[in-house]
Amino acid sequence: MTTMRQLVGEVLRARRVAEGLTLRDVSAKARVSLGYISEVERGQKEPSSELLAALARALEIPLSQVLLDVSAMLALEEAVDLSVASISSISPASDVEASAA
Amino acid sequence: MTTMRQLVGEVLRARRVAEGLTLRDVSAKARVSLGYISEVERGQKEPSSELLAALARALEIPLSQVLLDVSAMLALEEAVDLSVASISSISPASDVEASAA
Repeated sequence: MTTMRQLVGEVLRARRVAEGLTLRDVSAKARVSLGYISEVERGQKEPSSELLAALARALEIPLSQVLLDVSAMLALEEAVDLSVASISSISPASDVEASAA
Repeated sequence: MTTMRQLVGEVLRARRVAEGLTLRDVSAKARVSLGYISEVERGQKEPSSELLAALARALEIPLSQVLLDVSAMLALEEAVDLSVASISSISPASDVEASAA
């Protein structure tokens, strides 16, 4: 399962690209090092709440929207995990019953 | 403004209390130290994505739901901040115009 950190990175990167901003632009606006932002975008660094707020501000997106997007992506993954779990819980006996019916 | 970390702590604590669980219960289920969970609930520690996933699992709430709740609380704060900003941007001239009209 994708971690929340990776999804946060994906959402921030998608927003930056959609705004036509470079890592350098965001780094200057948010006053956060370019390398750090790059690591956050790739899901390699867990950003603090303060850093996340600064990045969202620089990207002119409400932090609540970032979390809403991450929540939606996570919900999709959770639904897929549930489906896989329910498929693996089907015992061979059900197949026999199904073909007998 | 309340940090995301504080709101995450509030949501987790509310869920734990609603489930009638003690910090000790959650600590045992999530295999995370009681002191650490307590600090997370009080917004004093920034939980990693993995820890947050473990706590959500122990509390039997999808992580997507935790983020959805935090997002809603943040959106409310952002709306209040916007209102305050727009009230402070009203210049005294508007008052004069308003009373002249």
